[in-house]
Amino acid sequence: MRPVALDAMGGDNAPGATVAGALQHDGSVLLIGRRAELDDLASDLSIVEADDVVAMDDKASSALRRPDASINVAIRQLAEGTASAVVTCGHSGAAMVAAIKGLGRLEGVDRPALVTVVPRADGGETVLLDLGANVDCRPEQLAQFAVMGEAYARVVLGLDDPRVGLLSNGAERGKGNTQVKAALPLLEQLALNFVGPIEPFEAFHGAADVVVCDGFVGNVMLKTVEATVDVTVSLMQKEIGRMPHWRLGARFMKSALRRFRSRTSASAYGGALLLGVDGVVVVAHGRSDRGAVDSALSVARRCVEQDVVGAVSKALAKATLPS
Amino acid sequence: MRPVALDAMGGDNAPGATVAGALQHDGSVLLIGRRAELDDLASDLSIVEADDVVAMDDKASSALRRPDASINVAIRQLAEGTASAVVTCGHSGAAMVAAIKGLGRLEGVDRPALVTVVPRADGGETVLLDLGANVDCRPEQLAQFAVMGEAYARVVLGLDDPRVGLLSNGAERGKGNTQVKAALPLLEQLALNFVGPIEPFEAFHGAADVVVCDGFVGNVMLKTVEATVDVTVSLMQKEIGRMPHWRLGARFMKSALRRFRSRTSASAYGGALLLGVDGVVVVAHGRSDRGAVDSALSVARRCVEQDVVGAVSKALAKATLPS
Repeated sequence: MRPVALDAMGGDNAPGATVAGALQHDGSVLLIGRRAELDDLASDLSIVEADDVVAMDDKASSALRRPDASINVAIRQLAEGTASAVVTCGHSGAAMVAAIKGLGRLEGVDRPALVTVVPRADGGETVLLDLGANVDCRPEQLAQFAVMGEAYARVVLGLDDPRVGLLSNGAERGKGNTQVKAALPLLEQLALNFVGPIEPFEAFHGAADVVVCDGFVGNVMLKTVEATVDVTVSLMQKEIGRMPHWRLGARFMKSALRRFRSRTSASAYGGALLLGVDGVVVVAHGRSDRGAVDSALSVARRCVEQDVVGAVSKALAKATLPS
Repeated sequence: MRPVALDAMGGDNAPGATVAGALQHDGSVLLIGRRAELDDLASDLSIVEADDVVAMDDKASSALRRPDASINVAIRQLAEGTASAVVTCGHSGAAMVAAIKGLGRLEGVDRPALVTVVPRADGGETVLLDLGANVDCRPEQLAQFAVMGEAYARVVLGLDDPRVGLLSNGAERGKGNTQVKAALPLLEQLALNFVGPIEPFEAFHGAADVVVCDGFVGNVMLKTVEATVDVTVSLMQKEIGRMPHWRLGARFMKSALRRFRSRTSASAYGGALLLGVDGVVVVAHGRSDRGAVDSALSVARRCVEQDVVGAVSKALAKATLPS
C-alpha cells in the first residue's frame, strides 16, 4: 500500500502530536508540512514540503486560494497517486473544500458527510453521519447520507442488511422538525432497510446500525457523547475519592475507566471519514494527541484496504436518489 | 403549600408509577384521572376525576378539544388555585398546549421552553433549554430562552451572574448553522453575561451555566446524555464480568455506578420545567418510574417555593427582547 499523506501542520497539537502519531506507522506515512519544523522531530520519515497552513479560525473557503497549504498539498499527493489516503487534524471545513476540489465528489453526492462509529450498549457499534461537514442540510442530502452510511456499514462493520434510522426527537411520525418531516418520505423511497425516525436512546441501544442526521445535530451529538463520558469518569473518580478504604475497588475502577475512555475516544475520535469524495480522507479531532493521530492513520489504512470508497460509489450508482 | 396536581394517567407506566410516586409525598398531591382506576391503587390520596387522557401518539393539538383529558383537568386545578403546580409524564406537546391555553404565557414569551439541569464534570450543573417544546425555533425565541434560562439559573442554582452560551458546533463566530448565526447578534444585545457560541464539550466542562439551543437539538442532546450514561454503565459492567477475581472492586463499582446513574437520571429526568407559562408545570419523561415521578413532584414543589415563575416574569419585563 502506498503511504498515507498526513497533514502534519493541522490541529491544536501539531506538529508534535502528528509526528509522534506518524512514528507509530513506520515508513507508511508521508509527512506534509514545513520541512524545517518537521526535520528535527522526525529525521527518518518522508516529508513533502508545504509552507502554508489553514488555521482553525480561517475561513474554510480560504483553502481554495492557498495551493501551498498543507491540506492542499496532502490532497494532491492522493490525487496524483503518491499517497493512498489523507489524514488531517486541521480545519475540517477546509479539508472538505480541498477534498472536493482536488478529488471530486462521487456521482450522486451533493455534499460529502463525515462519518464514524459510536459504541452501543449491546456491544455493537452504530454508524453516525453527518458529524459536521454540513451544518445546514437539505432533505435530499439526508437521503444521500443514508445510502452512503448503509454502504459504509456493510463494508466496515461487515453487516449484511444494515438498519438505517433517521435521527429524531421521537419515533412517532408526528415528531421531528421540519427537516426530518421532509426527509422521511425521501428515505422511505430508497431501497434500504429503513427503520424510520429514531431517538438517540434507541439508537445507542441497538435499534439501528446507521443513524442519519444533519451535520449540526450530529456534531452536537458526537461531542455530547465525548463530554458525557468525561463527566461520568470524573464524577466516578470523585465517588472513589470519597471512599478511601475501598483501595482495591478504586484501583480496579480507575483502570476500567481508563480502558473505557480509551475505547470510546478511539472509536469516536480516531477520525471521521469524509464520505462522498473520490478518495480516502480522514478528519480527526482538532485536539488529537499522539494516540488519536495513530488511530486516525489506522482508520485511513483500513478504509483503503476495504475499498470503502469503491463500495460507496457502487451503492450510489445503484440507488435512485432524490436530488 | 397547596397540593401538586399530578396527571396520574400520563406516561408509559401510568397509573402504577404515578400513584407510587405520589405516595412518597403524603397528602401534598392531588391525583388527576379515572377514579375507578386510581381508587384501588391509592385509597388515601385525594382524587379529581378526569375520564379522558391524551395518548402519546395523539396530536398535541388534540388537547385543545378535550376538556376532560387529565392534563387539562390538572391545569385547571392550577389555574383555579386548587393546586400550586402540575406534574405530568404524559404527552409533552399536549402539556404545552394545555398550559398555554389554561394558564397563558408570560409577557414577552412567544413559546415556552422545557428546561432542566445536567451534571457537569466540575461538580456543578448546567441549565439546558429548550429540551423539545419547540422543534423549529426562530432566532428571536432563542433570545427569549436565554433570558428565561438566566433567571432560572439565578433562582434554582443560586448564581449571581450566570454565564449564558449559545450551543454551536464550534466557539468561533464563523461556525454554527443558519439559526445560530442569526441568533448570535440577538443574544449579544441582551443585558446578560453572554459568553458566545459554545460547544457541548466546553458546556459540560463548566464554561457556561446556561446553554441555549432549539428544542430539536436540545432533545437530542439530553437523550444522548442519558443514552451515553447507559452505555457507559453497561460496558463497565461487562468489564467487571471479565474479571471475576476482582470481587471487591466489582461490588464497589456496581454500587458507585448505581449511585451515578440515579444522580444523572434524577437531575436530568426528574422533570423539565415548562418555562414561560404563568404557573409551575413540570413535564417528566414518558418512561418515568416511581422514582422519577417522586423526583418530578419534588422539582415542582421547589419551583413553587422558590417562585421561579415570578423571577422569570420579572427578568422578561426588564429585558429588551427582540420579537
